[in-house]
Amino acid sequence: MSGSTFGTHFKITTWGESHGAGIGAVVDGCPAGLPLCEEDIQAYLDRRKPGQSKFSTPRKEDDMVVIQSGVFEGKTTGTPISLAICNKNQRSADYREIASYYRPGHADYTFDQKYGFRDYRGGGRSSARETAGRVAAGAIAAKLLGTLDISFCTYVKSIGPVAIDPARFDLSQINENALRMPDEAAAKCAQEYLQECIQAHDSSGGVVECCITGVPAGIGEPVFDKLDANLAKAIFSIGAVKGFEIGSGFQAAHMKGTAHNDSFYSDDKGRVCKKTNHAGGILGGISDGSEIIFRAAFKPTPSIYAAQDTISRQGNNITVQIKGRHDPVVVPRAVVVVESMAALTIADLLLANMGTRCSHISQLYRT
Amino acid sequence: MSGSTFGTHFKITTWGESHGAGIGAVVDGCPAGLPLCEEDIQAYLDRRKPGQSKFSTPRKEDDMVVIQSGVFEGKTTGTPISLAICNKNQRSADYREIASYYRPGHADYTFDQKYGFRDYRGGGRSSARETAGRVAAGAIAAKLLGTLDISFCTYVKSIGPVAIDPARFDLSQINENALRMPDEAAAKCAQEYLQECIQAHDSSGGVVECCITGVPAGIGEPVFDKLDANLAKAIFSIGAVKGFEIGSGFQAAHMKGTAHNDSFYSDDKGRVCKKTNHAGGILGGISDGSEIIFRAAFKPTPSIYAAQDTISRQGNNITVQIKGRHDPVVVPRAVVVVESMAALTIADLLLANMGTRCSHISQLYRT
Amino acid sequence: MSGSTFGTHFKITTWGESHGAGIGAVVDGCPAGLPLCEEDIQAYLDRRKPGQSKFSTPRKEDDMVVIQSGVFEGKTTGTPISLAICNKNQRSADYREIASYYRPGHADYTFDQKYGFRDYRGGGRSSARETAGRVAAGAIAAKLLGTLDISFCTYVKSIGPVAIDPARFDLSQINENALRMPDEAAAKCAQEYLQECIQAHDSSGGVVECCITGVPAGIGEPVFDKLDANLAKAIFSIGAVKGFEIGSGFQAAHMKGTAHNDSFYSDDKGRVCKKTNHAGGILGGISDGSEIIFRAAFKPTPSIYAAQDTISRQGNNITVQIKGRHDPVVVPRAVVVVESMAALTIADLLLANMGTRCSHISQLYRT
Amino acid sequence: MSGSTFGTHFKITTWGESHGAGIGAVVDGCPAGLPLCEEDIQAYLDRRKPGQSKFSTPRKEDDMVVIQSGVFEGKTTGTPISLAICNKNQRSADYREIASYYRPGHADYTFDQKYGFRDYRGGGRSSARETAGRVAAGAIAAKLLGTLDISFCTYVKSIGPVAIDPARFDLSQINENALRMPDEAAAKCAQEYLQECIQAHDSSGGVVECCITGVPAGIGEPVFDKLDANLAKAIFSIGAVKGFEIGSGFQAAHMKGTAHNDSFYSDDKGRVCKKTNHAGGILGGISDGSEIIFRAAFKPTPSIYAAQDTISRQGNNITVQIKGRHDPVVVPRAVVVVESMAALTIADLLLANMGTRCSHISQLYRT
Repeated sequence: MSGSTFGTHFKITTWGESHGAGIGAVVDGCPAGLPLCEEDIQAYLDRRKPGQSKFSTPRKEDDMVVIQSGVFEGKTTGTPISLAICNKNQRSADYREIASYYRPGHADYTFDQKYGFRDYRGGGRSSARETAGRVAAGAIAAKLLGTLDISFCTYVKSIGPVAIDPARFDLSQINENALRMPDEAAAKCAQEYLQECIQAHDSSGGVVECCITGVPAGIGEPVFDKLDANLAKAIFSIGAVKGFEIGSGFQAAHMKGTAHNDSFYSDDKGRVCKKTNHAGGILGGISDGSEIIFRAAFKPTPSIYAAQDTISRQGNNITVQIKGRHDPVVVPRAVVVVESMAALTIADLLLANMGTRCSHISQLYRT
Repeated sequence: MSGSTFGTHFKITTWGESHGAGIGAVVDGCPAGLPLCEEDIQAYLDRRKPGQSKFSTPRKEDDMVVIQSGVFEGKTTGTPISLAICNKNQRSADYREIASYYRPGHADYTFDQKYGFRDYRGGGRSSARETAGRVAAGAIAAKLLGTLDISFCTYVKSIGPVAIDPARFDLSQINENALRMPDEAAAKCAQEYLQECIQAHDSSGGVVECCITGVPAGIGEPVFDKLDANLAKAIFSIGAVKGFEIGSGFQAAHMKGTAHNDSFYSDDKGRVCKKTNHAGGILGGISDGSEIIFRAAFKPTPSIYAAQDTISRQGNNITVQIKGRHDPVVVPRAVVVVESMAALTIADLLLANMGTRCSHISQLYRT
Repeated sequence: MSGSTFGTHFKITTWGESHGAGIGAVVDGCPAGLPLCEEDIQAYLDRRKPGQSKFSTPRKEDDMVVIQSGVFEGKTTGTPISLAICNKNQRSADYREIASYYRPGHADYTFDQKYGFRDYRGGGRSSARETAGRVAAGAIAAKLLGTLDISFCTYVKSIGPVAIDPARFDLSQINENALRMPDEAAAKCAQEYLQECIQAHDSSGGVVECCITGVPAGIGEPVFDKLDANLAKAIFSIGAVKGFEIGSGFQAAHMKGTAHNDSFYSDDKGRVCKKTNHAGGILGGISDGSEIIFRAAFKPTPSIYAAQDTISRQGNNITVQIKGRHDPVVVPRAVVVVESMAALTIADLLLANMGTRCSHISQLYRT
Repeated sequence: MSGSTFGTHFKITTWGESHGAGIGAVVDGCPAGLPLCEEDIQAYLDRRKPGQSKFSTPRKEDDMVVIQSGVFEGKTTGTPISLAICNKNQRSADYREIASYYRPGHADYTFDQKYGFRDYRGGGRSSARETAGRVAAGAIAAKLLGTLDISFCTYVKSIGPVAIDPARFDLSQINENALRMPDEAAAKCAQEYLQECIQAHDSSGGVVECCITGVPAGIGEPVFDKLDANLAKAIFSIGAVKGFEIGSGFQAAHMKGTAHNDSFYSDDKGRVCKKTNHAGGILGGISDGSEIIFRAAFKPTPSIYAAQDTISRQGNNITVQIKGRHDPVVVPRAVVVVESMAALTIADLLLANMGTRCSHISQLYRT
């Protein structure tokens, strides 16, 4: 069990290492009849692509996806969709050195402890490159959800000490600036901060926020497969995530019940609404029909040029400087990864909910 | 799929509602030969028991567990262990009223939306009472981990605005005060705060922290079944959790790589150590052998005596006052639930790791 | 992982040993809104009950089922249904002797090899009594399928050398004779044969056949979760089954394609029909809408009074005579177990199929 | 859920259609440190390759496998192994005709019923070509099992009316004749029979037998994941299988307990042995350490040149003659598919058994 499968109904299995032949995913359980082409997926991968600015690694990756199965005459057939992306521009030589020691903040040591050895080229399976497979699969989940008018809005909320200002919130900026911040002024400020980090051979953490609209009420399973629990797992499975919160999040711990409870009311069209949304759109693990909002905290990129103390594989205390191509911050590229994992989670639980009521079953089978 | 199963190798399935016949869990996959008796489990359940102070519901629950299968001559047999706890002292009449409206902050509305109707007695399956089954199962996981000297230290870190002071940290206090805070002064302060909440017919949120020692390096599966991802899901599956963080947590988003990276070093006995533990004991989703530290934020108890606006099942705007027995804060009783979910997660991934290397397999089968 | 869970969507987990406190099952994933009471389940359990004739063990088991959760106001709530059956009339003393040796044809030796020891009382978890939990759960699956007019007809096809004659096939006989054979003459003949077996301290094997009508076309997942593959697993998980075949079965190996292929035709109402049904209602692992027919071969009851050679736990060659209460043949009581496993399999795959098409999803969620 | 994943611990996910870009499998959970190269896998694929004689389709498939991930410096890393085989020599034009009608004995009708449409080129996902992915994955499972001296002997037992004669059993013949029969005379006889079938535009069924030696006692989980139940599912998931039996199989139904029970004895070296092996190496769903023997019945190839009655997609009664390249019998090529599925099943349950005893866990973790 090496844990490369996610989901029960809309199920993906990813494979590939940073410097192997390629990266890919098999999507099993996508309903039949969804119009799908490579461009749909490429659009998502392009949002993750490195080399778009000086704030992401200059490594050039084309990341061209190929659909190898499961689509016929432009539509999904209901059988597994195999997605593959070739690895190119691999400069493994850069990485041979790290075979001999354990990089702080990386999985080198733990992979060695678990498996007895490791594919040290660019982090192997623990490389951020692994997320390309998730994004390719997530694009399909998002397209499926789109047919139900479920949509995602994901962006960088903060980088180091620089946070967006709700008063200046401007969604159009997400695609305007390389940092994916919906606040032009904050983005400029964050760029200056990152410039300092680069010059200091350092890196920065940040926060990504995701808002999901259109999820019908009733999605999520009580007890262990709660919608928030599965989202937490999905997002925490992204390398570098150290925290996850939904709605009021950690703020809730400081609040009182009278302030935190979201009052229901019926609007003039008779629709059920809530006066506030501290719940973040989920009650008892089940979507309540309002906007789902969550945040993820990312640690600073562990790969930095600054000298660091560590040990060699033989256990000697040494000081190292890590060569290679590093992003000074991961959150701008992580935005689409977060969105993809959220889409996969919701697609899975949406399918899980299909057989929840006897009346649903009659509806489909008694025709 | 109603999501009442957790774990793949050490697998539990829970059942039961607040006011049904009882609550229980089936543990499948516990290794054979573990000494186990009802007292082992009762000790955990007693830590969760309500009615221990004025800060928890006066509802009297004996919560006596019965082992119905899977133990023979004092040892686990390797087959399913069925655990049952009878429900007593059910005053369903208290709850009949809530059948007619949706309590803010509760799952009443979402259960109705999902299933078409709900067991409204005390919240039914979404009641906090459901966690008794988890705790009973968690006690077994903890006992199993104890045979490998893996141990847990879990406590309340803050209640509302009152946090423990690291300078006054005193573990012995956890069992001394009803609030499970390892800081006598903070506990007193929090009690006063809760007294105010009660008088104001209000409730408070809080934070639980859990430290786990003795987990060998190598536990956790790369990519989707990372140790931190599975912990995140486990903890977020507890009702009322709004945030989860590990190690540096949300703080990491504000930090720089030079400060965040934990340098490895070899101590004078040649053991691999880290100078800091921002990672919280997990790198790349795999335990690194150091202490695992995480925190969970809980929202204020949604059941409050104060008047609240909401809607009836028919969709009319109404104002309600919820009767019944409410805890003004959930974190003291949640401590053992958090610990149980953590134990279940680690037991599951520890078993998952058994077949990770060919050499492990030879070791067990070539004898 | 001790393998006590069956199904992914309509999922059951069973527990209990022959001579422990009881036997039970937790059904997770039953759709909400199904009318259900204990009598529905008891009717199935009564078909399995021993002591009904001289051809089944005189052990008296009331097998009274209790529904402990998941049903509210006479309908399933969508949350886990816990079913429990107390064990009574346990004469463990009868079984203490078998602790010291390995009964031929039983799982004593393999349990000891697997777990290091075993619950030797009446076979513990490997006892046929374990099937009571399956039958209780199967009754719920069957009731669910009944709402779609899916029905089961299961009977004994042969006992030892005595097979039913298609020319004399009379379904009403299933409940008339203790052997559940739909052929009065064959039943009498089989009774005489079994009488001889009993006098010779011997036992007999037999074949159960199951016909399922009303399954809509489209049930079953290609490749690994084929309807026939899942049925094969379900039926082979019943102790004593040595063979399983569907439609033409082993006969197919002797046939030619021209004879075996079932021609499709359109009847006068435009319905798709087949001229023959060698497929047994399944093509490519997916139901074709016609009757599903399968057979299972059961070995002779391994518990016999005749003297047998075997070894003691210490490895000494010995001769034993097994005391206790034995059925001379298992197939009459196995009929309802086979039917229950078939119902569980079909319910599971029927739910799995709910999200197969995008149009299904739109149908349920776009309302 | 389209059912393309098999196994829980040694888990494979296959993808691909007969006439798409290719066929492949992702193996997740293979232990780290297993020496593996493409030749290991190619050797298995070559046993499945068509075009080796006039009794298999003249379609030329090179079936060259590429390992795309999970192997580093000649050894498995413990992360997913992605295997891909390009499709070549696709003459889709041959198949366009079958888009308009339902071939008898094929999955055309059921795919249409399930998904609303189908990839009609060569049967799409339901083509026997799908088994190439299983065989590639099975080769890895077999190599892993080989490190524990577990080995497989699989062959054709009968074709139509021609069965091998135990008296002439000669294993060396398996690789000598195109029909994989371990009996030279029977192979010749079967060739003549198939020649007649071809001339009559017809096809034949057959039986495959598999013997597995070296499986340690204790493999298989009680109740639902019995070794025989999982083998039954594995083998029945191969298209065209209509029957499966283990050990005495259907013969058991005619036997008496005194004849069927396998007596244990202790041999002169103190090893536990059985006088007979009607059990086929499995008792109570758990391996007993003796040889595992099972058989699978395959129906005649449904693709035949002879004219057949069927219906068009529009529901009109028509007569068709199917063009294309057909094997007159599938069993010779199915031999390696059966062996692969058996290897995957045993590898999976062998890993599942790793954590069965507390003493196993101490052995691995307390070092």
